Amino acid sequence: MSMPSVSLRDVVSALDAELRTSEIPDYPGAVNGLQVANPGTVHRVAVAVDASRAAITEAVVSGADLLIVHHGLFWSGVQPLVGMQYDKYRAMLSNGLAVYSSHLPLDLHAEHGNNVRLAQALGLNPDGGFARFKTVDIGVTGTADEPTDELVHRVQAFSARYGGSVRTSIPAPGRRTHRWAICTGGGASSESLREARDRGVDTLIVGEGPHHTTVDAIEHDLCVVYAGHYATETLGVQSLGAFLETRFGLPWTFLHLPTGS
Amino acid sequence: MSMPSVSLRDVVSALDAELRTSEIPDYPGAVNGLQVANPGTVHRVAVAVDASRAAITEAVVSGADLLIVHHGLFWSGVQPLVGMQYDKYRAMLSNGLAVYSSHLPLDLHAEHGNNVRLAQALGLNPDGGFARFKTVDIGVTGTADEPTDELVHRVQAFSARYGGSVRTSIPAPGRRTHRWAICTGGGASSESLREARDRGVDTLIVGEGPHHTTVDAIEHDLCVVYAGHYATETLGVQSLGAFLETRFGLPWTFLHLPTGS
Amino acid sequence: MSMPSVSLRDVVSALDAELRTSEIPDYPGAVNGLQVANPGTVHRVAVAVDASRAAITEAVVSGADLLIVHHGLFWSGVQPLVGMQYDKYRAMLSNGLAVYSSHLPLDLHAEHGNNVRLAQALGLNPDGGFARFKTVDIGVTGTADEPTDELVHRVQAFSARYGGSVRTSIPAPGRRTHRWAICTGGGASSESLREARDRGVDTLIVGEGPHHTTVDAIEHDLCVVYAGHYATETLGVQSLGAFLETRFGLPWTFLHLPTGS
Amino acid sequence: MSMPSVSLRDVVSALDAELRTSEIPDYPGAVNGLQVANPGTVHRVAVAVDASRAAITEAVVSGADLLIVHHGLFWSGVQPLVGMQYDKYRAMLSNGLAVYSSHLPLDLHAEHGNNVRLAQALGLNPDGGFARFKTVDIGVTGTADEPTDELVHRVQAFSARYGGSVRTSIPAPGRRTHRWAICTGGGASSESLREARDRGVDTLIVGEGPHHTTVDAIEHDLCVVYAGHYATETLGVQSLGAFLETRFGLPWTFLHLPTGS
Amino acid sequence: MSMPSVSLRDVVSALDAELRTSEIPDYPGAVNGLQVANPGTVHRVAVAVDASRAAITEAVVSGADLLIVHHGLFWSGVQPLVGMQYDKYRAMLSNGLAVYSSHLPLDLHAEHGNNVRLAQALGLNPDGGFARFKTVDIGVTGTADEPTDELVHRVQAFSARYGGSVRTSIPAPGRRTHRWAICTGGGASSESLREARDRGVDTLIVGEGPHHTTVDAIEHDLCVVYAGHYATETLGVQSLGAFLETRFGLPWTFLHLPTGS
Amino acid sequence: MSMPSVSLRDVVSALDAELRTSEIPDYPGAVNGLQVANPGTVHRVAVAVDASRAAITEAVVSGADLLIVHHGLFWSGVQPLVGMQYDKYRAMLSNGLAVYSSHLPLDLHAEHGNNVRLAQALGLNPDGGFARFKTVDIGVTGTADEPTDELVHRVQAFSARYGGSVRTSIPAPGRRTHRWAICTGGGASSESLREARDRGVDTLIVGEGPHHTTVDAIEHDLCVVYAGHYATETLGVQSLGAFLETRFGLPWTFLHLPTGS
Repeated sequence: MSMPSVSLRDVVSALDAELRTSEIPDYPGAVNGLQVANPGTVHRVAVAVDASRAAITEAVVSGADLLIVHHGLFWSGVQPLVGMQYDKYRAMLSNGLAVYSSHLPLDLHAEHGNNVRLAQALGLNPDGGFARFKTVDIGVTGTADEPTDELVHRVQAFSARYGGSVRTSIPAPGRRTHRWAICTGGGASSESLREARDRGVDTLIVGEGPHHTTVDAIEHDLCVVYAGHYATETLGVQSLGAFLETRFGLPWTFLHLPTGS
Repeated sequence: MSMPSVSLRDVVSALDAELRTSEIPDYPGAVNGLQVANPGTVHRVAVAVDASRAAITEAVVSGADLLIVHHGLFWSGVQPLVGMQYDKYRAMLSNGLAVYSSHLPLDLHAEHGNNVRLAQALGLNPDGGFARFKTVDIGVTGTADEPTDELVHRVQAFSARYGGSVRTSIPAPGRRTHRWAICTGGGASSESLREARDRGVDTLIVGEGPHHTTVDAIEHDLCVVYAGHYATETLGVQSLGAFLETRFGLPWTFLHLPTGS
Repeated sequence: MSMPSVSLRDVVSALDAELRTSEIPDYPGAVNGLQVANPGTVHRVAVAVDASRAAITEAVVSGADLLIVHHGLFWSGVQPLVGMQYDKYRAMLSNGLAVYSSHLPLDLHAEHGNNVRLAQALGLNPDGGFARFKTVDIGVTGTADEPTDELVHRVQAFSARYGGSVRTSIPAPGRRTHRWAICTGGGASSESLREARDRGVDTLIVGEGPHHTTVDAIEHDLCVVYAGHYATETLGVQSLGAFLETRFGLPWTFLHLPTGS
Repeated sequence: MSMPSVSLRDVVSALDAELRTSEIPDYPGAVNGLQVANPGTVHRVAVAVDASRAAITEAVVSGADLLIVHHGLFWSGVQPLVGMQYDKYRAMLSNGLAVYSSHLPLDLHAEHGNNVRLAQALGLNPDGGFARFKTVDIGVTGTADEPTDELVHRVQAFSARYGGSVRTSIPAPGRRTHRWAICTGGGASSESLREARDRGVDTLIVGEGPHHTTVDAIEHDLCVVYAGHYATETLGVQSLGAFLETRFGLPWTFLHLPTGS
Repeated sequence: MSMPSVSLRDVVSALDAELRTSEIPDYPGAVNGLQVANPGTVHRVAVAVDASRAAITEAVVSGADLLIVHHGLFWSGVQPLVGMQYDKYRAMLSNGLAVYSSHLPLDLHAEHGNNVRLAQALGLNPDGGFARFKTVDIGVTGTADEPTDELVHRVQAFSARYGGSVRTSIPAPGRRTHRWAICTGGGASSESLREARDRGVDTLIVGEGPHHTTVDAIEHDLCVVYAGHYATETLGVQSLGAFLETRFGLPWTFLHLPTGS
Repeated sequence: MSMPSVSLRDVVSALDAELRTSEIPDYPGAVNGLQVANPGTVHRVAVAVDASRAAITEAVVSGADLLIVHHGLFWSGVQPLVGMQYDKYRAMLSNGLAVYSSHLPLDLHAEHGNNVRLAQALGLNPDGGFARFKTVDIGVTGTADEPTDELVHRVQAFSARYGGSVRTSIPAPGRRTHRWAICTGGGASSESLREARDRGVDTLIVGEGPHHTTVDAIEHDLCVVYAGHYATETLGVQSLGAFLETRFGLPWTFLHLPTGS
């Protein structure tokens, strides 16, 4: 059986179109789309949450010539290619490993999105958007009618599957969740908590958030479930791997590299 | 034995002088100093990390007429006194509970400081400052020569004492800590990691920090130990309680109210 | 005859709907809507221009449990509750006095608005808006054909009724007003004078404005009538008092507390 | 007797040196120094508070070839020379009238300053600065021990001399002034009131200030005396006229053009 | 034959309407429209690229009472009228020379525009806009199919006619231009080069641009032709001269004052 | 004879110390110091003005493993490594070519500086700094007493040697240069022209500058000599090549790659 061979240009075009890369706004450091090219052909794909040194090393070891990530290479702005950065770029360029990154376009995608996928994994049906960023909603929201602690247990089971642990305030006995929202990654902030209150959300599932959000949540009787930044953002890139397999027959691997956060 | 009775004015003056409240720069939401007055006298003191509803309720129950906190009432800016905010302010004003808050002046204090106290609790001797904010160093730094995993174990023991848990990358076998830094609270950020690298720090002990700091730390072979925002900031307010007992004979209680963060 | 008793929630909902509180943009310090809650019921209303200590004291004396103001409590941002601020908040909370504030939503309201009401009191018929702020016009404008000094005299009579005095350049003999504009409060500024010139306004009636506007006005042959910040903003809150009386049968009092400005 | 004739260059150099024009910071619109030149010689000087059309017309009528003002021509930024601006500039250029302006350098001057001169006129001895702007203090402060109403009466007498009127809250019977500050012109603001409180000032004499300062002053038991923007800034330019007479023997006239503010 | 005599007001109204002066956005220093008035009548017009001293002097010598320019008097913001500025303003005001300036409204005009006119002079047919500024396109773009060096030669011939010289990278032998864009004046920048790449432009004709644009252009295989800031902006003002001649019968002169840039 | 072999670390340390890289402020895009590492050793050095594709290609062809430039790789901020950027980075990394960049530290260096070197090449002796940037002077200034056209001729001869041409206003016959300033690169701007006027400079030698500087210069009787951005910045990198030869015995080549600007 022959190995598939697809032009990098075609793969990038397919991803850009599927994710509407040029239309979705994002933070300056995101640089969505192809971040590093390769000599031109893709035979095998690796997907990971972060474009870390470990992900690049494992992608090379796996024989991939394209790495798809959620957090790309450029969040810290311009960095000289010295020390470990030099090693990292040399590993990509000398091994012909291209890198494609998709941040908010992947978070909010209707099919591949981290938020929609997490809702599905938790058995929740979104009926609207949450966590406005400029012109788009990053997260999702929906209605439910179940004991909050049952929902928390499902989140715990999910996080455990990805090596993570859940942190939350203990729901009052008998507390029920009527309106929930999900915002993966760094989803707890003064803004998202205010939006939750304004929109009647009683249970907010996020990746992580700073200390003051835990205090504020209790002040406002909001149950915030911190499910882990890494764990909540593992589903989107896997969905993209499956998408490329379906479209181009490319084999793919998920590089599971939890950071503890 | 008669109950001590000290004027609020004298207690506030003593704290302002000890902490150099008017000299130390801070974020706008900190509002260091007396945040809420009372009818004029202090008989009993409560200290807590956060000025949460729970802290105010417990302070009232404990019979305190002064609550000293590290995170005060005004971080979210102006808030209407409605709903739970109304309850909170009415609890303070109708029970005569004054609130005194000290953020950076307490973090960096040479004797009562959260950072110095945490270093002492870990058996570390600071020889300089770390984590510059405007004109001051918030954290501390020092030299050591010991296996990094031994240091991490001491941090774990400390956090466990305050109901917290430690998160960190597993140090490579044989890795030794030669230069450490401490920045309590939200101490891990792009800035503090850069400062650590620039100053040769190999082990950074913080309260918390967002996901990307865990990725960046590994990229630069920096061991970041996340010891919990709450746990790392419990020592300063206790030191202030002891200070007021010594100075004025006032009894005091530490309100242990962990948030899980 | 039994005293009326209306839930605070209902009163606030009625005011928010009538004034479109959530839709009208404003300055950050305005904080339109309910600023301080009370135990839940309203029996008597007081209205005043400013949420000053005097207004709160008199509202309490009058037996009101709701004070409606045009200038609320938060224009200076976060302030510690110490000294006179402590007294002020304790007076509200211990006497169960709620405070509702409405700034621009009240200035520009088509029925209760300070600007429309002042135009009516001066016998002027507005045919358009003036003094754009973001998406709304705060003031009003209209046509006339009368000697400017006659209009000035009517303004003087109005201000005198509210304990104020009018300041203006003396109109040239025979000068007639063809196009006028009103902007109550601090309505004279470089911007409003430029707008007046651009739109052919020859007579501008305001509350107050800094020195340079008096110089600029003369430079451009514009008659600016400074009728007093306080006096020009007394009508809106009275209209709201009457509105609540009609809607809920609540008795109300206007607290006349001129400041000289 | 021959008419004096001094080169414009020499007059400007003397004023720049005396006022330290190049050293004192100011707002961008101030443009301190020579604002409009003339053909080169000065025989007669006029001084006025504002560079208004009226001042320019009267200066020309008085035979002056140099007009010294406190508020210059450029506060509104770039303006096309059309309409009244065209007339104004043509009047200056065709009549050879130069204009020299000095804003903060004149406000704060130790001898000619509006603030020092006003203090002297009121029989007050400054012992320090007030109203910080960047690196300089614009106003002055000092101690006293006299009934506040006596001081207010002296201010009223001064303002009346310049066609102005004083506005202030009525001091409580028996109230005494122990610490006063003066800031001429638009001296009342949130900032200056806060500075007054922080520095223990009980009586603040200013030119003017917006409505909310009258409310805030009462809240904090501060007596603010509004003596008129125009009146409080008439002394500095007169002192400069006298300075040029002494230095160069130039005759000068004060153009008294009150604006009512 | 009698000399034509048109009111300045009518000429300005005609220009404002033709150029849509009040609608087109521009940089703050542009101040489009009448910049300096005259006693009221226009008999002769001069047009020039820059409102320089030389242009004003020559306009006066030519007997013009209106000077139309592309770069007006106020680009440097407020400037005291001293030294050469004094001479310049005195020359305008004492000789009754009005100045009308039109920057972006003239650059982008469909008939008189510098960009459209330059395209015509080079035999190019625009089919769209280029170089977005807020809500408008300043430049033009179009398709072609010709050797790039032939196009460059036509630009050289054009510039030579206006005393300028062309600077460009030497096109590779056989290189053809398929998509071109024109942005007169300072048209080469990081932004315009990025826009050119994004829109498939292979040949960009500009007035001037800094060094780094020459390096960047080569990096991206973009042929940038620097035709001279002055030369590329000579056509618009001439078109306005012809427009006024047609409309009002006013004689006009083009003042050719190249600066070498 | 054996080829020299120096560790990259030693070369970088020597350059950083000589140029005081960490002390001199600069624009964010400059990123002074080592921008791209290599496997560790330097045998041959290339120097060029710009880190262009051509420079990298020629440096590789010349056998260099270190390229020293004045304008580095990061002026456009973060750029994906695709297309020509990909080729460029692959050329560096696969050929082991390190890149060291020095912008302002090289412009202002007392021995190697572009400005000092250009002054020497023109026979001028600097006696002070010019063109302030934050805490440093980038350019130089000095006195002279010679016909301006003689100085212009010397600049023309210099530029011609580097393939450039000079642009300037033609000095009036008999005009003499008494005070000159040099600012290489993009040295003509509103700021540098104002500084020149304020400091009595009559002749300003720069690399390049936009059109309005040519107009402004004439307005103020300042002779600005535009000697070419490229030409004026060729001397500093050559001086660094010679410095490394002296210090380490490394052979070096100057890559002459004029851009026409």
